[in-house]
Amino acid sequence: MDINKILEQVKNGILSPEEAEKILKQLPYKDMGFARIDHHRKLRSGFGEVIFCEGKSDEHLIQIYKHFATENIDVLGTRATSKQYEVVLKEVSNIKYDPVSRILKLENENKLLQGLVAVCTGGTSDIPIAEEAAQVAEYFGSCVLRVYDIGIAGIHRLFSKIEEINTANCIVAVAGMEGALPGILAGMVDKPVIAVPTSIGYGANFKGVSALLTMLNSCAEGISVVNIDNGFGAGYLSTQINRLVINGGKK
Amino acid sequence: MDINKILEQVKNGILSPEEAEKILKQLPYKDMGFARIDHHRKLRSGFGEVIFCEGKSDEHLIQIYKHFATENIDVLGTRATSKQYEVVLKEVSNIKYDPVSRILKLENENKLLQGLVAVCTGGTSDIPIAEEAAQVAEYFGSCVLRVYDIGIAGIHRLFSKIEEINTANCIVAVAGMEGALPGILAGMVDKPVIAVPTSIGYGANFKGVSALLTMLNSCAEGISVVNIDNGFGAGYLSTQINRLVINGGKK
Amino acid sequence: MDINKILEQVKNGILSPEEAEKILKQLPYKDMGFARIDHHRKLRSGFGEVIFCEGKSDEHLIQIYKHFATENIDVLGTRATSKQYEVVLKEVSNIKYDPVSRILKLENENKLLQGLVAVCTGGTSDIPIAEEAAQVAEYFGSCVLRVYDIGIAGIHRLFSKIEEINTANCIVAVAGMEGALPGILAGMVDKPVIAVPTSIGYGANFKGVSALLTMLNSCAEGISVVNIDNGFGAGYLSTQINRLVINGGKK
Amino acid sequence: MDINKILEQVKNGILSPEEAEKILKQLPYKDMGFARIDHHRKLRSGFGEVIFCEGKSDEHLIQIYKHFATENIDVLGTRATSKQYEVVLKEVSNIKYDPVSRILKLENENKLLQGLVAVCTGGTSDIPIAEEAAQVAEYFGSCVLRVYDIGIAGIHRLFSKIEEINTANCIVAVAGMEGALPGILAGMVDKPVIAVPTSIGYGANFKGVSALLTMLNSCAEGISVVNIDNGFGAGYLSTQINRLVINGGKK
Amino acid sequence: MDINKILEQVKNGILSPEEAEKILKQLPYKDMGFARIDHHRKLRSGFGEVIFCEGKSDEHLIQIYKHFATENIDVLGTRATSKQYEVVLKEVSNIKYDPVSRILKLENENKLLQGLVAVCTGGTSDIPIAEEAAQVAEYFGSCVLRVYDIGIAGIHRLFSKIEEINTANCIVAVAGMEGALPGILAGMVDKPVIAVPTSIGYGANFKGVSALLTMLNSCAEGISVVNIDNGFGAGYLSTQINRLVINGGKK
Amino acid sequence: MDINKILEQVKNGILSPEEAEKILKQLPYKDMGFARIDHHRKLRSGFGEVIFCEGKSDEHLIQIYKHFATENIDVLGTRATSKQYEVVLKEVSNIKYDPVSRILKLENENKLLQGLVAVCTGGTSDIPIAEEAAQVAEYFGSCVLRVYDIGIAGIHRLFSKIEEINTANCIVAVAGMEGALPGILAGMVDKPVIAVPTSIGYGANFKGVSALLTMLNSCAEGISVVNIDNGFGAGYLSTQINRLVINGGKK
Amino acid sequence: MDINKILEQVKNGILSPEEAEKILKQLPYKDMGFARIDHHRKLRSGFGEVIFCEGKSDEHLIQIYKHFATENIDVLGTRATSKQYEVVLKEVSNIKYDPVSRILKLENENKLLQGLVAVCTGGTSDIPIAEEAAQVAEYFGSCVLRVYDIGIAGIHRLFSKIEEINTANCIVAVAGMEGALPGILAGMVDKPVIAVPTSIGYGANFKGVSALLTMLNSCAEGISVVNIDNGFGAGYLSTQINRLVINGGKK
Amino acid sequence: MDINKILEQVKNGILSPEEAEKILKQLPYKDMGFARIDHHRKLRSGFGEVIFCEGKSDEHLIQIYKHFATENIDVLGTRATSKQYEVVLKEVSNIKYDPVSRILKLENENKLLQGLVAVCTGGTSDIPIAEEAAQVAEYFGSCVLRVYDIGIAGIHRLFSKIEEINTANCIVAVAGMEGALPGILAGMVDKPVIAVPTSIGYGANFKGVSALLTMLNSCAEGISVVNIDNGFGAGYLSTQINRLVINGGKK
Repeated sequence: MDINKILEQVKNGILSPEEAEKILKQLPYKDMGFARIDHHRKLRSGFGEVIFCEGKSDEHLIQIYKHFATENIDVLGTRATSKQYEVVLKEVSNIKYDPVSRILKLENENKLLQGLVAVCTGGTSDIPIAEEAAQVAEYFGSCVLRVYDIGIAGIHRLFSKIEEINTANCIVAVAGMEGALPGILAGMVDKPVIAVPTSIGYGANFKGVSALLTMLNSCAEGISVVNIDNGFGAGYLSTQINRLVINGGKK
Repeated sequence: MDINKILEQVKNGILSPEEAEKILKQLPYKDMGFARIDHHRKLRSGFGEVIFCEGKSDEHLIQIYKHFATENIDVLGTRATSKQYEVVLKEVSNIKYDPVSRILKLENENKLLQGLVAVCTGGTSDIPIAEEAAQVAEYFGSCVLRVYDIGIAGIHRLFSKIEEINTANCIVAVAGMEGALPGILAGMVDKPVIAVPTSIGYGANFKGVSALLTMLNSCAEGISVVNIDNGFGAGYLSTQINRLVINGGKK
Repeated sequence: MDINKILEQVKNGILSPEEAEKILKQLPYKDMGFARIDHHRKLRSGFGEVIFCEGKSDEHLIQIYKHFATENIDVLGTRATSKQYEVVLKEVSNIKYDPVSRILKLENENKLLQGLVAVCTGGTSDIPIAEEAAQVAEYFGSCVLRVYDIGIAGIHRLFSKIEEINTANCIVAVAGMEGALPGILAGMVDKPVIAVPTSIGYGANFKGVSALLTMLNSCAEGISVVNIDNGFGAGYLSTQINRLVINGGKK
Repeated sequence: MDINKILEQVKNGILSPEEAEKILKQLPYKDMGFARIDHHRKLRSGFGEVIFCEGKSDEHLIQIYKHFATENIDVLGTRATSKQYEVVLKEVSNIKYDPVSRILKLENENKLLQGLVAVCTGGTSDIPIAEEAAQVAEYFGSCVLRVYDIGIAGIHRLFSKIEEINTANCIVAVAGMEGALPGILAGMVDKPVIAVPTSIGYGANFKGVSALLTMLNSCAEGISVVNIDNGFGAGYLSTQINRLVINGGKK
Repeated sequence: MDINKILEQVKNGILSPEEAEKILKQLPYKDMGFARIDHHRKLRSGFGEVIFCEGKSDEHLIQIYKHFATENIDVLGTRATSKQYEVVLKEVSNIKYDPVSRILKLENENKLLQGLVAVCTGGTSDIPIAEEAAQVAEYFGSCVLRVYDIGIAGIHRLFSKIEEINTANCIVAVAGMEGALPGILAGMVDKPVIAVPTSIGYGANFKGVSALLTMLNSCAEGISVVNIDNGFGAGYLSTQINRLVINGGKK
Repeated sequence: MDINKILEQVKNGILSPEEAEKILKQLPYKDMGFARIDHHRKLRSGFGEVIFCEGKSDEHLIQIYKHFATENIDVLGTRATSKQYEVVLKEVSNIKYDPVSRILKLENENKLLQGLVAVCTGGTSDIPIAEEAAQVAEYFGSCVLRVYDIGIAGIHRLFSKIEEINTANCIVAVAGMEGALPGILAGMVDKPVIAVPTSIGYGANFKGVSALLTMLNSCAEGISVVNIDNGFGAGYLSTQINRLVINGGKK
Repeated sequence: MDINKILEQVKNGILSPEEAEKILKQLPYKDMGFARIDHHRKLRSGFGEVIFCEGKSDEHLIQIYKHFATENIDVLGTRATSKQYEVVLKEVSNIKYDPVSRILKLENENKLLQGLVAVCTGGTSDIPIAEEAAQVAEYFGSCVLRVYDIGIAGIHRLFSKIEEINTANCIVAVAGMEGALPGILAGMVDKPVIAVPTSIGYGANFKGVSALLTMLNSCAEGISVVNIDNGFGAGYLSTQINRLVINGGKK
Repeated sequence: MDINKILEQVKNGILSPEEAEKILKQLPYKDMGFARIDHHRKLRSGFGEVIFCEGKSDEHLIQIYKHFATENIDVLGTRATSKQYEVVLKEVSNIKYDPVSRILKLENENKLLQGLVAVCTGGTSDIPIAEEAAQVAEYFGSCVLRVYDIGIAGIHRLFSKIEEINTANCIVAVAGMEGALPGILAGMVDKPVIAVPTSIGYGANFKGVSALLTMLNSCAEGISVVNIDNGFGAGYLSTQINRLVINGGKK
């Protein structure tokens, strides 16, 4: 029973106000419109369905993808293994897998991409995380400019690309090891930079902690950080900003 | 000697191309237009001058504020002590100091504020950092909605304010101790959330590390993090996003 | 306007169900009964007012204590300095201060104490935190059995007291340095043990981290841990359990 | 030779008091009743036998389960692998294994369950640890209310369940990643909350450290923490509290 | 009532064995001889009284020293400040203070020193901790050989002293910064080496953690470690070993 | 050419003093007697050959054991795998392997064991490290008293064994998880306690760091610590102390 | 189009200075000579091509080595597995692999080696990292003096070799566990010492962190540190210094 | 008695070879020439006297400076406070103090400076440490090129200076916060870069740990790191390299 049915019954004298009040407070919050905020957000924003594949059982995964395939709804899975792909493929033929980004996707064609998000990496080893960010941004509707391998070892390439990068509405900067790229970029552009530390490196890198700390301590302005290897989070957030800009905050 | 003078001389045969090439490579990069990107950015974006007061000597500080006062340029100093305020005040009479945010400011009146940035805190102890963020955002030209003390201990207040918070173009969420507020907010709004961990707390808080880790690990989408107590960074970044949205990416 | 007024108006046809639904969703959540849960809890449980004095300004503190003194409501302040006590005392004459626990209290006499909470310490240096726990437990209405200095250096005293300690409904075990006491206690009693690591120690103690880790890793059953030096939290939780037991879960 | 035999011999003049004193001090403490405290506790409390399967050799495990099967005594093994299950099953046919909680159990039917413990999780990935807690609580005689996946991503579900959760005598809150659930729960209920951080997450999660710190630093009252992934400890402690409440401290 | 009185009464028929058994189990353990082990140890070993002065109130400290002065018992206080010395001196005239080791001592003359403990330091900054160790060892009755400043910067001095150092029964090696001395020593002698890391250093020294880890990881044999700056512990343990050796395990 | 040959030649006028001095300084130090200290120590102390098997290649290992077998010299290898045992066994038939301690040994029979070292563990999981310590101590000539599983969960067994443990000249206390055993023991005996933290545990145990910190921070006197899982080091050091005591420092 | 062509066209009136300026600023920086610095450096210094094999796919690796084999250019791959070697060998027959240093190399014979770099290790387990450093130094043209196993356990060997080591222009000191060797060396020589911590060890070694901290805190002068296990970096830097010395800074 | 006197006596039959051998081994190593290596190094290299002032008592400091003033020997003190300066100045009139670098120096004029060391900083806050490095390098005889404030916020200044920086024989790069400068520099020059992390920053900077990790993980080649804030070490090492280069390894 939803809220306006209850109110109708109050109006019609079927329910007393006291009874109605009691019922209203018993109702799950989602029935009272609270959850609708959440739901509306999904509908309004067009951020499609996403699942985290790592650690999910094969049966569970097949079930999920079959469901979305049947309903003809797009769905993007992150951190899928090639083995998971093979297992799901047997049941859902139009599934797509990218071994670099480890994204396992069911997606209708002809998606409209808008605005621009730049995804940059310090080195070539950071590309898997960058591709996760880039493909997530595309899945959510952003055009993506990829500029890879422009860290300290390739800093001259960065200089030749900086103007183009700055045409994006939001910049995702992915770097492992010393993690200096996001700070260098933020010092040269005037767009928000989302820094993604990667676990690339060894020794005193501590699986990405070194890069994470570098980014948090950047003295450049206009930079913020997500979790180590969190390409998905950066792809989502960059698109959120990109859309706000395109729509002038109207969405 | 700037670049087009050199080129004029090449045209006029005063310089051979070889000599010109040599000179060009010797020139500081700023003379070659490179630095102009940085300069243009400041001019274009209207992000005023900012200085970090902590640790600066009294003489140095007086000199800086006097310079800007003479030039009639706005300047905002962060992390100033009340003693620094008193020292500078003797020389620069129209300086303003806020002991909560510790901002020492020289600012012309009637600044136009636009768009909206929401600044929220988990508790009342987080207010100094939140005020730094809020006043920096205002200094850079954003309207600011302040919603304080809505963390776990005041979570019902959060629910009553959530719609209003979501009207902002960007949300700054400041929290110490367990640092859960940014994640809770990000789960309820569809705007970018900039999380600011504070060093408020004791024991296993490790001067803000606990809150920082909470925020980096948030399972909500649309959240990114700045350094512990970095109210300035959050104020800057939120305004950068706010402006992009207002101007539809035109700036 | 509260919820049953709205429902009355729906009943009377003053508001249409649609209008009512809209209003209901606009109302702050606290007005919808949600916040009442929190409020009721305080009333029902009789847990009095508490404030955290550390870092509060003198004016703010005076204001708070004056308010409660005027309203004749009990209030307990934790982590107060003796200087804060002196400042408040000038304005609120019946305030009480304990320099060991650093509790600054305004409390009516003849409080009924019920059940039993045991508060134990490993050494004498842990007593300030233990007293915070004990006095908080008393403030909230628990009888408290204090058994101090029964750690490894005084383990024979522990054995002679163990039966008495086990008569409590809940045991708070406070220890610094190696922090072994809570585990030893938990191995000998059949009541819940709340472990409180203290920052007492030096060197590889890391301000209480050593004791914290010891307690988290205890192989004894029936033990849980609060933050370093969090005597207040242990006093609160132990009383919560003590009351549940006395009231047979009725409260 | 036990203590009352010695005393009989003293009475009968067979032993002099001096000789008896000497013997008494030589006796192992367990013979002097000391160990009986421990033993009585087990008998009285009805906390059945428990073993930690991880790392135990197959032969050792078979031996243990065979012994209890022969004696017709219940026994619950934690952290068992499915391979261990298969090995033991060949020898002990009525053994039960749950691959989610990894509990390998030998248990008589028709166990009486009493009182109520609520076991909640932030996400679905936390369920294995939650199930360990829940099944341990049931094994020790508690009724268990399971409320899963009510963390930040499912916070509206939390609100609709909060009243029911608060009917429990003790609440176990299991969460990984940011670990905010226990604090949010503790802010809304008036029952003790046992927080269990899980190692779920990646990057700056540091295998559960992030969630652990969040929980230790919670500003909500009535919360305490056990080790990362320690579902067993939470199941034990919650039942201990549950029983105390049911029995009004009589046990 | 002590244990042999009880046994006498059993012998005399005043108490039945059953009553006696009950009483025996009710008695505090210290009355049953258990505590006596601890007491006997002190008496037997001649390890005098020791107190930890840091953080003790002036009144408390005066009280302690006055008590021992009256009883004519030796007492050694560690980590005393010069201010504490001045305060106690007013009440206890024959107190001695060493500002280097920060030891505040009340000691009868003509103490017999036996055996040999060598106390070595890496640098001159480690001397305060070394002196704490050395003077504690002397207080407990060991002859002490001091060999200071023989770390990496003075390694040639180490070589010229190594034979003499090896005549000791136990070697205390105190070092900060890189903390290499204990390992180097252990590689050259055939006596137990007790390593004491000091908090001397800066930066990545982390207040002694660097030296602590160096010592724990030493690949030399015959080395063990005490807490950072724990000169007292090393002085105690070295004397314990020294005495065992002198007395051939008889004590 | 060794040192006395050189001196002979000086005596005989074959070498001038200047030439001799030059040669002496060029000589490897071992030839100058320096290395002999080290060598003599081995001979004198009777500490046999030891090798660290972990990570050694099969060929290398076979070569080592064959060499000692041919020379009829005892050798003890630590951290050997059962696979390494099988490989070496094919070539060296009288090799012995213990899968618990992972010691791979070639040892003549009828070794004389002297004095006493006690090796204790907190739990049963600590036994592999304890056995490494115990068997190393026996290999080096100490009698060993094993007292296992006397930690917090079995503390009553500790009390019944404490007198016997204290008859040893040195006590090795092995414990994981909370690591409280060595401190408890040190508080009850008057012999040196060598604490060995083990990596047993999970979560906030951090692979033995928790136990290590507990031991370093023990407030009991007469305790020192070796590296996590360093059973070998404890076995060596305890024997070194045991021998010193037996021989009254004469060796 | 490169910069002097543009200048020629300005000279010839084909381009106006304004047009030229515009083009110059649009050009990628590498075309403007900036990148040439980097390129020239490689050519001038003779530092050959290097690749990091770890994590590279087989196809990618084959492609790289085939390319260099065809072009007859030397290339050195670090951290290659023996499996990678086998895969590449099938396509590039003159490839060389060293299983100790894990270097996979394609190199012309008769390379001229100059100057001297000493590479030392504390133990035998450090040799793989030392060999990486040594072979990289040789690949880049340095003569290498190898002095292995001269750490604390072999310190007498160090003394006999110290004069020879000091003839090198730069010393690489590789050590794990306690990591004392670089500091000891730096105290005895007057050449720069590059310290390489290795991840050799266990327990409180924390995969090389212990050795890293030891080296950073060394009180010896003339020492600097590279990342844990970074043999390549030490080989490169030592050769860079060696060359500067040989060429008197002329290169 | 030194070594050649002994040899003379052997030659003259005053000492038998056996007696001589015995004496030689008893002599302190410094008398045997071993220590002379150390001594010679100082003489040869001309590295003057240095003392660490921090923590030294006033009397001790006066004594040291008076001694060197009397002997007319240069001496440089690091980390001196202005108060220490004032105290020493009263006794040693020609002492010089620089409050930025905190160097307290006694130095003869007209020192010959040779070669070139570049000292660079990321920001202005890093200048105190950079000045310590620069002035130490000058004290030891290097010409120094100072290039300050060329980090990410001033990266265009870096580009205009890079050629000049690369003329140095060794580059010291000082940076706090994110610490990216050394890596950026190392990527652009072909000289050794000594990275000095500073403790400048706040929050997740952890007093320089962030910058330290950044530098250790740099993917640029030719970079090594010294301890946090260790300007002295960098000044020493850079001069050591500078001299080697100038002297072509001859010294």
